[in-house]
Amino acid sequence: MSSVWGHNIKLSLFGESHGKAIGIVIDGLPAGIKLDLEYISNEMKRRAPGKNKLATARKEKDEFEIISGYFNEYTTGTPLCTLIYNTNQRSRDYEATKHLMRPGHADYTGHIRYSGFEDFRGGGHFSGRLTAPLVFAGAIAKQILKQKNIFIGSHIKSIGNVCDNHFDPVNLEINTLEKLMKKEIPVIDEAKGKQMQEVIIRAKEEGDSVGGIIETVILNVEQGIGSPFFCSIESEISRMLFSIPGVKGVEFGDGFDISRMKGSEANDEYFIENEKVKTYTNHNGGILGGITNGMPILFKTAIKPTPSISKLQRTVNIKENKNTQLEIDGRHDPCIVPRAVPVVESAAAIVILDFLMGR
Amino acid sequence: MSSVWGHNIKLSLFGESHGKAIGIVIDGLPAGIKLDLEYISNEMKRRAPGKNKLATARKEKDEFEIISGYFNEYTTGTPLCTLIYNTNQRSRDYEATKHLMRPGHADYTGHIRYSGFEDFRGGGHFSGRLTAPLVFAGAIAKQILKQKNIFIGSHIKSIGNVCDNHFDPVNLEINTLEKLMKKEIPVIDEAKGKQMQEVIIRAKEEGDSVGGIIETVILNVEQGIGSPFFCSIESEISRMLFSIPGVKGVEFGDGFDISRMKGSEANDEYFIENEKVKTYTNHNGGILGGITNGMPILFKTAIKPTPSISKLQRTVNIKENKNTQLEIDGRHDPCIVPRAVPVVESAAAIVILDFLMGR
Amino acid sequence: MSSVWGHNIKLSLFGESHGKAIGIVIDGLPAGIKLDLEYISNEMKRRAPGKNKLATARKEKDEFEIISGYFNEYTTGTPLCTLIYNTNQRSRDYEATKHLMRPGHADYTGHIRYSGFEDFRGGGHFSGRLTAPLVFAGAIAKQILKQKNIFIGSHIKSIGNVCDNHFDPVNLEINTLEKLMKKEIPVIDEAKGKQMQEVIIRAKEEGDSVGGIIETVILNVEQGIGSPFFCSIESEISRMLFSIPGVKGVEFGDGFDISRMKGSEANDEYFIENEKVKTYTNHNGGILGGITNGMPILFKTAIKPTPSISKLQRTVNIKENKNTQLEIDGRHDPCIVPRAVPVVESAAAIVILDFLMGR
Amino acid sequence: MSSVWGHNIKLSLFGESHGKAIGIVIDGLPAGIKLDLEYISNEMKRRAPGKNKLATARKEKDEFEIISGYFNEYTTGTPLCTLIYNTNQRSRDYEATKHLMRPGHADYTGHIRYSGFEDFRGGGHFSGRLTAPLVFAGAIAKQILKQKNIFIGSHIKSIGNVCDNHFDPVNLEINTLEKLMKKEIPVIDEAKGKQMQEVIIRAKEEGDSVGGIIETVILNVEQGIGSPFFCSIESEISRMLFSIPGVKGVEFGDGFDISRMKGSEANDEYFIENEKVKTYTNHNGGILGGITNGMPILFKTAIKPTPSISKLQRTVNIKENKNTQLEIDGRHDPCIVPRAVPVVESAAAIVILDFLMGR
Repeated sequence: MSSVWGHNIKLSLFGESHGKAIGIVIDGLPAGIKLDLEYISNEMKRRAPGKNKLATARKEKDEFEIISGYFNEYTTGTPLCTLIYNTNQRSRDYEATKHLMRPGHADYTGHIRYSGFEDFRGGGHFSGRLTAPLVFAGAIAKQILKQKNIFIGSHIKSIGNVCDNHFDPVNLEINTLEKLMKKEIPVIDEAKGKQMQEVIIRAKEEGDSVGGIIETVILNVEQGIGSPFFCSIESEISRMLFSIPGVKGVEFGDGFDISRMKGSEANDEYFIENEKVKTYTNHNGGILGGITNGMPILFKTAIKPTPSISKLQRTVNIKENKNTQLEIDGRHDPCIVPRAVPVVESAAAIVILDFLMGR
Repeated sequence: MSSVWGHNIKLSLFGESHGKAIGIVIDGLPAGIKLDLEYISNEMKRRAPGKNKLATARKEKDEFEIISGYFNEYTTGTPLCTLIYNTNQRSRDYEATKHLMRPGHADYTGHIRYSGFEDFRGGGHFSGRLTAPLVFAGAIAKQILKQKNIFIGSHIKSIGNVCDNHFDPVNLEINTLEKLMKKEIPVIDEAKGKQMQEVIIRAKEEGDSVGGIIETVILNVEQGIGSPFFCSIESEISRMLFSIPGVKGVEFGDGFDISRMKGSEANDEYFIENEKVKTYTNHNGGILGGITNGMPILFKTAIKPTPSISKLQRTVNIKENKNTQLEIDGRHDPCIVPRAVPVVESAAAIVILDFLMGR
Repeated sequence: MSSVWGHNIKLSLFGESHGKAIGIVIDGLPAGIKLDLEYISNEMKRRAPGKNKLATARKEKDEFEIISGYFNEYTTGTPLCTLIYNTNQRSRDYEATKHLMRPGHADYTGHIRYSGFEDFRGGGHFSGRLTAPLVFAGAIAKQILKQKNIFIGSHIKSIGNVCDNHFDPVNLEINTLEKLMKKEIPVIDEAKGKQMQEVIIRAKEEGDSVGGIIETVILNVEQGIGSPFFCSIESEISRMLFSIPGVKGVEFGDGFDISRMKGSEANDEYFIENEKVKTYTNHNGGILGGITNGMPILFKTAIKPTPSISKLQRTVNIKENKNTQLEIDGRHDPCIVPRAVPVVESAAAIVILDFLMGR
Repeated sequence: MSSVWGHNIKLSLFGESHGKAIGIVIDGLPAGIKLDLEYISNEMKRRAPGKNKLATARKEKDEFEIISGYFNEYTTGTPLCTLIYNTNQRSRDYEATKHLMRPGHADYTGHIRYSGFEDFRGGGHFSGRLTAPLVFAGAIAKQILKQKNIFIGSHIKSIGNVCDNHFDPVNLEINTLEKLMKKEIPVIDEAKGKQMQEVIIRAKEEGDSVGGIIETVILNVEQGIGSPFFCSIESEISRMLFSIPGVKGVEFGDGFDISRMKGSEANDEYFIENEKVKTYTNHNGGILGGITNGMPILFKTAIKPTPSISKLQRTVNIKENKNTQLEIDGRHDPCIVPRAVPVVESAAAIVILDFLMGR
């Protein structure tokens, strides 16, 4: 049981929030990919903290240094290791409260799991910061997929109770995704985006936080990718998504809503157009029997409100073994949903690349 | 990419709906487990078809024969292989329509994936029938877990739009689960169970089908089980759940609903009771940072309406490469949710056992 | 840790010598392979017991029944499960001596490993009989490789102290392999083959046994297959070879002998012939840095003398916890080397196919 | 297929000889191990280049920096990443000859495998330098094993044709191993050690190189560790040993010699002493059926002569696609066997720890 993942592409994730660096080893990349470092940087900036008032004040440039597997601008095909240095830690923030378990965080479960030897500063290995190397890996995956005309994009379906429109499940265009990628709050309906911003700022002012839902699409994956049962597209994507801290729900196509439909409503009927088999609707999110049918792959990811809030909370002091209270002082995100968007996309990109490398 | 699963317990699932037999190899079971064959049989009966008017008329006893790994009533610790013979196939039902892709099924995706060599009869390897060996494996896992005082149980949260009450996320008792296990429609509120039956029968009469949601709980898993990232409890359970045909959504704790809460509502505050750390609430479903915190593990599984309906549907004939229509004649489940309950529980049991074997 | 193997092709081996059947699940085979059942049968006969006076008198036809993954004469691409029924057990042979640990066998180590719950009859899961399903899998792999012009063959390099000639490491021809495959004792020098037979028969008469060395070659694997480090060709082939009961040594190219050469003797110098890079010599057995160089892949496998001998041996009675003596009565092979030849070839075939499926 | 390894302990190896750094991620280590950094340094010094006239003149201190998984002197249980910086590269040595394939090296196979994108300087990812991180991981494994009273040690069985005595396979003492560990040329018979030194120096003077055999023992592994077939102790150790550049043969117990024995000679008869089951002899090297029997685990590893020699060699220029000659100028080891000793021991230590973590 481990921080190692993959079939054809293997990821090995390491690091702690307040250590020297975090990083990832990616094994199994094809040789000869000319990395677009600017594109990778941009993807990492989409996730980086401190970029605006909606996010934590901890400023990390998230600059990466490729240590191996990269030579004369191309991937070598041997394991590619990247480091992202931690530069703006304020570890003293955590020293004072290290025996007080922050509710909603992994402090307590990590403490039990690792017998008290965990690096408690800033969540240690459990920190959301560990998603930065995932975005690095995802950016490479996305770049490779793009060469196969595969595009991945997302919008924020909801923040708190403010809901954006749905993606068109059948006729979604790459163009739409590219526009979304440039927005601070990627939504289809701009008015809803503004309301979402307000909800986040209000939560921040209250010392509270909000969660949300991200809807993601993968366009142009060919038909016949995936396997029945344990290596279904849904199994592999969900496994990766639930690796992201804060994710509590994943659904494909109409997901929980499909459970309230009748078969005659939920079945996606087939037709042939230009010699290609398509479906009129896409309630199944482009996947049947764990395998792609060529329609857009659609899924939603539910993200909980950031557990770091500055309101007074009841908790326990595990050293003194007694009940107590905690007021967290530090730099926190009132809402991680916007920063989670590139992470979710990266997770999907890595999984799809892994499937395609196995063909 | 494969029908092989697991870290410490390995499953290898095989078979087609209309072949001689389906089965499973389970490797890594502890030696010296006295199998309770009657218990296993009962679990398999919970899933078996043909037992009442709510399910398909195909009658399969689902009797299993253990081929290996079992000696003088005990597991040997070497791979345990079980066969479940197929006895009541009516393959001709499928021969006539083999070029017509059934909407909502894996006919088309399987056809592309396996280049036309798939066994198309009754869904072949994609058949829901393949969940019978999973229930066999799950029954053994449940039996072993019970010895560690771990119990897994479910109720049907909804069928169509009829909703049952919620499980008590904090104080759920084993007793409640044992009662549910004996019910044909396992619900907390009996009145809702009757409404669900009516919904199913109505769908059947209309030649249609309905889906639903199953809520499952795992009681008494100790604190500190699981890992951050790729082997989180959520990652592993969701991966297994999405292996089950028809599952389109999975959420832990309050899942998608938690995304609409504030941090101050969603955080489960800690307290100490009888020297044990607990939480007042359980919005996170017993898991933080991918690791158990000792509270009940709670998750919900969304199941789509059975794609087999007898209503006329638009589809394609892939041999003649043209649009056509299809009216499926056969024996189908108007609702697989009740039969899916033991499958979902088995999935959870196998995953938890796999985690515990790795300690 | 398990009886499951593989990256792209997954094997799941099961069964005990005196159970109902032994078998294997092979997952990841390509769809659409028309199986040559007669070829598979012939391969299994090469391994089968009881075929002549050189082998055990236990007669097993080793007939296989394909349970899944095979439809209308072609592989479906879904897991292929095969059973080989046990028909000629004489379990009483073992009942009387079950507390007496046979030297050289896995009785004692299996007893400790499985806490006394192992099926002790005929070696249980440790029986050499479990290599029959491996030969089945290997025959399919060989058939697929043959379509890519890849051939695998062996000769017996030695039995006891009788040594055959070496394979020509550079210019070996398929023709030579095909001739060897038809021989009861596959040797290059017929005179040596006769001497080997005599050595085996003499050992049998003495109630003793002999071991030997098998030299194997794989022809026409393209250049560039394999990986550095943990997935080197040598790593993967040796791992599989040491899975075969009785194997105690594996070497590639000149193996242990290369350690006594100078670099100037051991290095295989390159030249270009017909636009193809070749080496003048082949001391490295076709592999450099874990990757094929296009020359014949050569390896030798050392097999110990069958531990089953009828001579009186000192041992322990683990029930009574005391020293005792044992005279094994039963049907045994005085030398398993000839029967091991197709097993070793199968191991190699499976590994090479696994590598090729991952490209 | 990859540079990732392991079941319970996962290794992810990365880096190239002339890149910024090489390193390893070790996942699955127990939390709370106080690392003995001095011991690790000493182990790495045993492998380090440039320490005497028997080895290459490239001086690398092989100082490591632990990046993650280590906090307040203890392992945290989360992935431990270490970097070893490359400091003394002379890349120009390689630039001039980059199109000339060095015989016996992985230049050519790596070139084909990675389509010409490999980092060719100093062997890149194929460099023997990549064994430094393995020794780092092995040192940690050895330290943990020592706490369980398990000791691993080796002597050089032969260099060229000079042979040391054998280890006593039954009564070997820890004391003997500790003395060997301190020797520059670890041999039992000092006189032979001097002859070996002479052989190495003579080869160096001739611009040539020599190989050798290492005999290794693992003491005090409890009975019942390992599994039949694919996860046998032999399978897992050999897989790891053949990952080490230059290894061409592996044998357990009497290995190839056992193939020349009779069963009555090769079988290790049992007896009970102090309530413990032991064997009189140890021809099987402590392993039966892939599982430990409690006797010393013994194996030998054949290492080829260093391919880097300064004699003129025939080779090809792959850019100009023609035959040519090559005279390698650089700093090379006339014999890597002494430096390979800690690598082989590390490989064994990692495998044994992996097995023990899975119990």
